[in-house]
Amino acid sequence: MKRNIAVLQGDGIGKEVTRGAVEILEAVAQRYGHEFDFQYGDIGGGAIDLTGSPLPDETVKICKNSDAVLLGAVGGPKWDDQPAHLRPERGLLKIRKDLNLYANIRPISYYSSLSESSPLKKEFIEDVDFVIVRELTGGLYFGTPSERVERDGEEAVVDTLFYQKSEMKRILELAFALASDRKKKVTSVDKANVLESSRMWRETAEEVSNDYPDVTLEHMLVDNAAMQLIKNPKQFDIIVTENMFGDILSDEASVLTGSLGMLPSASISTQGPNLYEPIHGSAPDIAGKNLANPIGTILSAASMLRLSFGLEDEAHAVEQAVETVLEYGLRTGDIANGQPEITSTSEMISEIKASLLDQEAISNIMGAYA
Amino acid sequence: MKRNIAVLQGDGIGKEVTRGAVEILEAVAQRYGHEFDFQYGDIGGGAIDLTGSPLPDETVKICKNSDAVLLGAVGGPKWDDQPAHLRPERGLLKIRKDLNLYANIRPISYYSSLSESSPLKKEFIEDVDFVIVRELTGGLYFGTPSERVERDGEEAVVDTLFYQKSEMKRILELAFALASDRKKKVTSVDKANVLESSRMWRETAEEVSNDYPDVTLEHMLVDNAAMQLIKNPKQFDIIVTENMFGDILSDEASVLTGSLGMLPSASISTQGPNLYEPIHGSAPDIAGKNLANPIGTILSAASMLRLSFGLEDEAHAVEQAVETVLEYGLRTGDIANGQPEITSTSEMISEIKASLLDQEAISNIMGAYA
Ligand SMILES: [Mg+2]
Ligand SMILES: [Mg+2]
Repeated sequence: MKRNIAVLQGDGIGKEVTRGAVEILEAVAQRYGHEFDFQYGDIGGGAIDLTGSPLPDETVKICKNSDAVLLGAVGGPKWDDQPAHLRPERGLLKIRKDLNLYANIRPISYYSSLSESSPLKKEFIEDVDFVIVRELTGGLYFGTPSERVERDGEEAVVDTLFYQKSEMKRILELAFALASDRKKKVTSVDKANVLESSRMWRETAEEVSNDYPDVTLEHMLVDNAAMQLIKNPKQFDIIVTENMFGDILSDEASVLTGSLGMLPSASISTQGPNLYEPIHGSAPDIAGKNLANPIGTILSAASMLRLSFGLEDEAHAVEQAVETVLEYGLRTGDIANGQPEITSTSEMISEIKASLLDQEAISNIMGAYA
Repeated sequence: MKRNIAVLQGDGIGKEVTRGAVEILEAVAQRYGHEFDFQYGDIGGGAIDLTGSPLPDETVKICKNSDAVLLGAVGGPKWDDQPAHLRPERGLLKIRKDLNLYANIRPISYYSSLSESSPLKKEFIEDVDFVIVRELTGGLYFGTPSERVERDGEEAVVDTLFYQKSEMKRILELAFALASDRKKKVTSVDKANVLESSRMWRETAEEVSNDYPDVTLEHMLVDNAAMQLIKNPKQFDIIVTENMFGDILSDEASVLTGSLGMLPSASISTQGPNLYEPIHGSAPDIAGKNLANPIGTILSAASMLRLSFGLEDEAHAVEQAVETVLEYGLRTGDIANGQPEITSTSEMISEIKASLLDQEAISNIMGAYA
């Protein structure tokens, strides 16, 4: 298979972690006989410094000509005082819009070797394996009017939650399709006892579920979902919800396993390339020090192999390689949890690569650590 | 001190748990020389059966003539198939409206004796002691329009988030006043990077904070707050937020300590009596079996003593009595966590009462359990 991958390294640790993911993708190409071609584009603060824009047209062009986009992270104190349109984060908002990314997918997986890092007791968190599917372009964050008004002679304010039925339908279809390939359960989260938009969401979920007779649909109110994520996260397979609820719940879920630096994400396009990125930020405090955890970005690359290229075996091999090095006890600082021996970014990348290319070789390398 | 207390027992375990709180309030009156007069009113399913309405006018009258209202819980399978206006929960919505309850207060406290019940590891949850202050009458749950519309020839839907400045101001003032009497820190939660209503909320919080120079104000985005509640709940003193964010975060917070049956709440009126109730429901499955945990309602009564009557010592004595029986190892089923010996509702109430009236007496009683 031959594929073009756009790589937007961004700022801070973005460079180090995307470099890691590219190395792993190259190893995948080598082991499985694929050809991945990497085109680099600027985004974020670095792009502002070079071109005056957080997302130059050239970068958009590179992305649109690619089969998938890999992104690191953007931002840093250097650009904190810029006017709004020159903030690095604007580059993120604009790329999401330019690529028509309507869904964000966040898998939350438990690694038994990292159980010390979780705030939750082991019996609550072990074997957790679910995916949050969040609508990304509609709802309260984008509706109009969103403005100050006058009411009864005093200042007041209005924001608007707006959805078209087709926007609900396409994300619910994505959720059911993902569930079909997993544990065949969709938990649709809404506030249907109060919101009209949630009642329409719930109806649409019921309609879409008719096309997936082998997938179980359950409805859950958002306040209850916020409880259940902590009380019993094992119950979930696919959680699907609208934009704002998804924003809150996916960030809540991201701290359950205690390893933010490990978590990948995928944003799905209506047409054109999807975008893959770790959920962590640019961490300017450790940038360039060979301390960043590259695993979130490497697992994002695994998601790319699975979701954009249909390469399930390859995706699984990358995930397996990550699990192997964790079981050997390799830890970057963010997941070390008091362990004195810290693995650097570049070491972590090499060991994952070694594990991917040759399961025997890694055993030998690891002997040195024993 | 002489005070009139309206008691709305409601359905299911509501009767048992309010009976417990009344017994404790009577013990407080006895020990401290107060006079509490209890007037009983119907609400919920029982009220529907008796009068045809989930909140009869007579009940509203009793409440309005009281100094504070104590509520149990409403609802049950018997009334699940009623039309919307004859559902027990309608009684709750209506009493909140009739009493002008604009703020809901939920304290989240850690009991070291219950650390086994929490999903969180002890080091994350111990010494947690914060209060969530939620706006209760405005925002997305009440704004209009809230309806189906047509857009671009297809079905669409709109909900509306609306706030007047005065609604924001009064709840923020309440939060700062509460913080003044506690650890002097207010965390105001919003989504000011996206919502205009949140930007007005943040401005209003800044304005109100000028009147409380000894209280520290910090702003936190709602998605980050959902993470921080799990990662580091000890950082909080008072969390204040608008209605929907408060709905989600207060339910999330309620499972952190692992003892939903322990948690009290208070709803504050613009004028007139406040309402105090446990956060748990009517639990029809265990109703009438002497199995319910009365502590949530007893601690709600303690909040009544503190917030409505200004009786801080008395409130503290009740809380202390609860802590004492927990330390002795008494557990209702919901907090037993595998412990074979289960304390009944009535036993739990007697022991808390005994502890409140005579610290020595309880030691003797407890001898029998040793
Ligand atoms: Mg977020
Ligand atoms: Mg709720």
